[in-house]
Amino acid sequence: MAVTAGVDVGGTKIQAVVLSARRVVGQARVPTPATGVPDVVAAIVDTVRSSLDEASLKSSDLSGMGVGIPGEVDTETGHVSRAANVAGFMDDVPLGNLLGRRFRGVPVLVDNDVRVAIVGEYRRGAGRPYRNLLGVFVGTGVGGGLIFEGKLRRGRGAAGEIGHAVVKPGGRLCRCGRKGCLEAYAGRASIEAAARRRQKQGHRTILFEIMKHKGRDRVTSSVVADALDKGDPVTTRLVDQAVEALGVALASAQNLLDLEAIIVGGGLGDRLGPPFVRRVEKAMAPHVFASENPPAVLGTELGDLSGAVGAAVMAGG
Amino acid sequence: MAVTAGVDVGGTKIQAVVLSARRVVGQARVPTPATGVPDVVAAIVDTVRSSLDEASLKSSDLSGMGVGIPGEVDTETGHVSRAANVAGFMDDVPLGNLLGRRFRGVPVLVDNDVRVAIVGEYRRGAGRPYRNLLGVFVGTGVGGGLIFEGKLRRGRGAAGEIGHAVVKPGGRLCRCGRKGCLEAYAGRASIEAAARRRQKQGHRTILFEIMKHKGRDRVTSSVVADALDKGDPVTTRLVDQAVEALGVALASAQNLLDLEAIIVGGGLGDRLGPPFVRRVEKAMAPHVFASENPPAVLGTELGDLSGAVGAAVMAGG
Repeated sequence: MAVTAGVDVGGTKIQAVVLSARRVVGQARVPTPATGVPDVVAAIVDTVRSSLDEASLKSSDLSGMGVGIPGEVDTETGHVSRAANVAGFMDDVPLGNLLGRRFRGVPVLVDNDVRVAIVGEYRRGAGRPYRNLLGVFVGTGVGGGLIFEGKLRRGRGAAGEIGHAVVKPGGRLCRCGRKGCLEAYAGRASIEAAARRRQKQGHRTILFEIMKHKGRDRVTSSVVADALDKGDPVTTRLVDQAVEALGVALASAQNLLDLEAIIVGGGLGDRLGPPFVRRVEKAMAPHVFASENPPAVLGTELGDLSGAVGAAVMAGG
Repeated sequence: MAVTAGVDVGGTKIQAVVLSARRVVGQARVPTPATGVPDVVAAIVDTVRSSLDEASLKSSDLSGMGVGIPGEVDTETGHVSRAANVAGFMDDVPLGNLLGRRFRGVPVLVDNDVRVAIVGEYRRGAGRPYRNLLGVFVGTGVGGGLIFEGKLRRGRGAAGEIGHAVVKPGGRLCRCGRKGCLEAYAGRASIEAAARRRQKQGHRTILFEIMKHKGRDRVTSSVVADALDKGDPVTTRLVDQAVEALGVALASAQNLLDLEAIIVGGGLGDRLGPPFVRRVEKAMAPHVFASENPPAVLGTELGDLSGAVGAAVMAGG
């Protein structure tokens, strides 16, 4: 009976789970320290230990550990770099080794956060019935992960960037510096930036009042959801554009790949939930070539545990 | 030493080759009869026999035969349907059986024309050095074929439709009835239709004079090439738009799949040749996310033999 740990290291939180006999038997979550690599590593270790405690297990029970983290990951060596949202991880960090030292003898596998999330949904979530699927994770940015014939597709290391599909040539500026990318319309950070621009232009919006009222310093997914619920016109328009952009990018991907399923998750995707997923499905429909055989379009089943569960699964759990 | 025949059945011509020890030892080409299924089948048989004659081989030497044809193909049964450009093949035609009867004992394999073409380029053409590639065939329409990890990807039967990637939401009407598809900008038939509209609107173009001068009743790839060489402004503009559209669609595909190579072929792609392929590569560049590691962008090596060679290869040659 394999016991494995999985950790999802995000810009705001670190989520760990422990799997035993394929089930989540322990979990824990802490805010991501903003104080650099040693503190982030210590927080990962603590979160895993808390998850083990919950299941009355010890680190010596672990047969493997997986970690998902944004940025570039060398899966061979466990090195991470260019993770802009995790303090200290823009530089090259030997995360696999650092954790291996703390969990003596436990093999540690490190991979990209979006990849571990699609593996989580594929193996233990909404993707279980399928062998060919795309996961699109709509959060601060927009990431993607591909499963073909039951296997994660990495390409040469950069596969899955559905967030940088061009949905409007010459369109809105993306955080990547290019124009018209899906992420420039559907990513939470881009929606926030676009709302600020519109407010400056004189459009009235309650989005930033909701943000302050919730004690946040940025427009989180729940801020967007509340503004949408209250009928804020700027937010409504921006989410409409996000849905249209997702429809275009996902339909183009579908026409090329003829997938069985597309899973829509991520912070914003999960928070806006099934009504949002249904809208994305509807926005895809007019652009799907094999319209008699569209893919299943689904929300996640594991929600914000997709990544941690996927990481634990990749570690053999 | 396997001897196989491969046939590419197109809207205008039927091209056959015979492979022996992996080399083309015979080939023949005839115009596609416009008079229905029996004549098309007879023409296929004759073309294969001519190819065998050239190599001093007999049909009893064949260990297999492959056929590529547009439309929907059931590869299990060898049935073809919805091939709009081949007379009689809109209806369901048991092409595999019809040919099997004429070549007694020779297994006949039927597949989609674009798929056999990408297999040809992958196994015997420009794609040989790679294991993950996309072929985009720019002809009357725009078709695509995908090779992942050395295997043709069919999806659920409809994979490869890069021609119906959305390059401009709400844009030019496509022959498929949708708007803004790649094919609406880059397909030869769409370029012809757009040129006619511009001429009606008062734009001056020599495209249709060139067509008549060449004794054609439609704007063939060589008509487009000649108009482009002569600097015809309408043709120049339309080809510019085709290049831009290909850049957007192929970059989006690249961002999702991180392919090693993209091969640009088809009647128009082959006719416009390397300068066109270089322009497509340049048009992709600003949209490629992993810009430090772009794919190789190549023309075909087999030209209009890609399909026939690929069909013969699929039959074991």
